[in-house]
Amino acid sequence: MAVNLIAPARLEAVPGARWAVAEAAIKKPGRPDMALLLLPETATLAGVFTRNAFAAAPVRVAQQHMATGRARALLVNSGNANAGTGRGGLADAQACCARAAELLGLDAEQVLPFSTGVIGQALPLDRMQGAIDTLASGLDEDGWLAAADAIRTTDTVAKGASRAVDIGSGQRIVLTGIAKGSGMIRPDMATMLAFIATDAAIDSDDLDAALRAAMADSFNAISVDGDTSTNDACMLCATGAGPGLSASDSGWPLFVSALTDLARELAQAIVRDGEGATRFITLAVTGARDPEEAREVGFTVAHSPLVKTACFAGDPNWGRILAAVGRARVADFSIDRVAIALDDVALVADGEPCADYAEADGAAVMARSEYTIAIDLGRGSGEATIWTSDLSYEYVRINAEYRS
Amino acid sequence: MAVNLIAPARLEAVPGARWAVAEAAIKKPGRPDMALLLLPETATLAGVFTRNAFAAAPVRVAQQHMATGRARALLVNSGNANAGTGRGGLADAQACCARAAELLGLDAEQVLPFSTGVIGQALPLDRMQGAIDTLASGLDEDGWLAAADAIRTTDTVAKGASRAVDIGSGQRIVLTGIAKGSGMIRPDMATMLAFIATDAAIDSDDLDAALRAAMADSFNAISVDGDTSTNDACMLCATGAGPGLSASDSGWPLFVSALTDLARELAQAIVRDGEGATRFITLAVTGARDPEEAREVGFTVAHSPLVKTACFAGDPNWGRILAAVGRARVADFSIDRVAIALDDVALVADGEPCADYAEADGAAVMARSEYTIAIDLGRGSGEATIWTSDLSYEYVRINAEYRS
Repeated sequence: MAVNLIAPARLEAVPGARWAVAEAAIKKPGRPDMALLLLPETATLAGVFTRNAFAAAPVRVAQQHMATGRARALLVNSGNANAGTGRGGLADAQACCARAAELLGLDAEQVLPFSTGVIGQALPLDRMQGAIDTLASGLDEDGWLAAADAIRTTDTVAKGASRAVDIGSGQRIVLTGIAKGSGMIRPDMATMLAFIATDAAIDSDDLDAALRAAMADSFNAISVDGDTSTNDACMLCATGAGPGLSASDSGWPLFVSALTDLARELAQAIVRDGEGATRFITLAVTGARDPEEAREVGFTVAHSPLVKTACFAGDPNWGRILAAVGRARVADFSIDRVAIALDDVALVADGEPCADYAEADGAAVMARSEYTIAIDLGRGSGEATIWTSDLSYEYVRINAEYRS
Repeated sequence: MAVNLIAPARLEAVPGARWAVAEAAIKKPGRPDMALLLLPETATLAGVFTRNAFAAAPVRVAQQHMATGRARALLVNSGNANAGTGRGGLADAQACCARAAELLGLDAEQVLPFSTGVIGQALPLDRMQGAIDTLASGLDEDGWLAAADAIRTTDTVAKGASRAVDIGSGQRIVLTGIAKGSGMIRPDMATMLAFIATDAAIDSDDLDAALRAAMADSFNAISVDGDTSTNDACMLCATGAGPGLSASDSGWPLFVSALTDLARELAQAIVRDGEGATRFITLAVTGARDPEEAREVGFTVAHSPLVKTACFAGDPNWGRILAAVGRARVADFSIDRVAIALDDVALVADGEPCADYAEADGAAVMARSEYTIAIDLGRGSGEATIWTSDLSYEYVRINAEYRS
C-alpha cells in the first residue's frame, strides 16, 4: 500500500559501524525483532528524543546514558515500546543494556536502548536476553538492511538510504540511515526511530548541530517539533573511521546538506508508508509572517481528518482545505490575500474562489498519487513544507486491529 | 448507528416562536432542506458564531444583521454551507434574507441566514427562493420537530429537547431547542447549528450572558471554544410571549441551569450521532492547574485517532491514552501524580501502571457503549468534562463519500 516506496536494494556500509539482528519473538515469532549497532571507541553520537511527558523507559535510559558521553552501542527492539511500564520498565531497559554491555565488554551506560511497539506491556525479558546473546556474536558492517527490517512494526516496507559526499581534497565520506514509523495520520503519536551513521570523525558538538539542522526540514516536517510519541528518537553517529570533519571546514555544508537530504528521504519514506496511505501529499505554505506560522497552518491542514478523507476519496472538496486553513491558530488572520492551489490548479486567489476553476481540474490533480497543496497566506515571507498522507479505511483497520 | 440516541417524540411549542419547513432540493430532492423561524416583535436574540477566519457568508451576514438588534427571523438551509463562496456567496445570503423579509413584511437585516453542508459551492438560489415562498406561508408553533429534521446533513437522527422551568410565583417558562451536527472526530470542523427558544421576556444583555454560560459546559465541551468550522452557530431566542425574567430575579439561576442542561443534551446528541460513532465517551479531567489546562488534556485525548480507533475496537490499549495525555500542551508536566481510570477500573496511579489492573477489566469497560475515561493530573483543582465518540470505518466511508 505504500505510495511509491520500495525497500532499498542495498545500503552502503559505514566503516566502523556494525549491526546484528536477532529474533526474540517479542510480539510474535517469525522474524528478527531486535537489532544492535556497535560503534568503535572513536565514535561520537548525537540524538534527539521525544518531548512526551510519558517518555518511555528506554528513552529515559538512553538520555541518561547519552549524558555520559561514552555511548558505544544502540540496542533496538520492535514489538513492544516499553512505555507506560513504570519503574519495572526502567529496570527492564537497564537489564537489557547490562546484558549487552557484558557481552560486548562495555559498561551498561555505554549501551542506549530503543523500543517501539505496543505501549503498556512489560518486555519479555527472558526471550530478549537470549536474543542479545545472539546479537553480540553476529555484528557485521553489512547489517544495515537486516536492521532496517528488524526495527519495523506496522511498516510495510523497510526504510533506508545512503549518501556519499566528497568533502574536498579527494576525501569521501559515507552516510547511511535507517528508519521506522508508519502511523502518520497524526505523526506526533507515531513512534519514529531513525539511526544514521557516517564514517567521518566529528566532535560531539558539531555532530549535534548537524543533526538539529537536518531535523528541521526532515523528521520535524512530518512530526510536530519533537513533542511526539512516547518513544521517538533520531540518532546520528560518527564512527571516526574516516576523514576528520568540523563545522569550520569547507566541506561541512556539503555534509550537512547530504545529511539533511538523507534524513528527508527517510522522513518522506515514513509518510509514504503511512498506515493505510494511498497518497503522498506535500503541503507548501508560503507568505506567512514567520516559519512557525507557516508550520502551524501546514500541520493544521495535514492533521485534518476531513481533508485527509477527501484526499483518500480523490475528491477536490477544497472547502475542507480552506476550513482547515481558517481554523489554524494564526493571529490577526485576514483571508483577503490567501491563495490556494492543487499543483498548478489555482483554487483560491485573494481569498476568493477562482472564477475559472473547474472541478475536473482539481479532481485530475487529486487522482495523482503525489501532489502539492500550495497555500500562500500573503502576509510575509515565512515558509514551511510539510509532508503527509491520506486517511483511509485501512488506517482504521490497522489501528483497530493492531494488538489482535 | 447513533449511540443510545433516538429522535424526540415531541417538542414543546414555545409561545411566539413559529417554524416552517420546505424543500428546495439544495443537494438532492426528497426531503425538506430549508427551515424558517419567525419571532414576534417582542423577541430578543443572542448568538455565538464560529471564529474560523474563513467564516461562511451566512455567518458574516447573520452577524451584521444581529448587530442591528432588530432581528426577527432565522432562515436555515442544509445541503450547502455557502462557505468559501466569496462575494457571490455574500450576495446570495443577502438575497435569501431579502426574499424572506419581503414575504414576512420585515427589512432584510431582520432576517439571519444559516447554512450547513458542502463548502465551496454556490447556493441554488432559484430553487431556494421558491422554497422561501412556501416557508413564509407555513409558519406554525408546532414546527420544531419538522425543523429539527430539515436542518440535518449527515445526522442520522433529528436532535431536539424541551424543558419547562418554574421560575417562582407559579410562573412557568418553556425552553425548546434543536441542533444538527455529526462530524465529530474533530468537532472543531463539523458544522454545528443549534437554535433554542424560550417564551420568557429577557433583555438582550441577560440573554447573551445566559447563552455564554450555557455554552461552556455544553457545545464548547464538544468543540474547541468556538474557533470551529466555517458555519458554526448557536442562537438563543426569547420570544417575550411569557413571563419577564432578568438576571437579578431569583428564578434566573433556574433558567440558566435548565438552559445549560438543554444545551448539554443537544451537544451530547451531536456526539452520540458522531459520524460512524459506536461509542459515547466522557473524558473527565481533574486535578489540573486550571480549567483551561484540563480542557487541553481532555481535547488532546478526545482528538487522538489512535485513542479513537482503540475505542472503536473496544481494545483497552490504554497506552494510547497515556501517550495522548503526555503530549498535551501542559507546562512543567510531571507524570508522577497522574491517575487514569476507565469507569471504576484504575489503570494508572501516581504515574505508574496499577499492579492489580487486569486487561479483562479494561476490556469489559470498553465493551460498554458509554463509559468515562477519568484523568487526574494531581496538580490542582482545575476540571473539565469533554464528550467524544470513536473513529470507525464508517467515519471514513461517510467522509470519503460525502459529496457522491
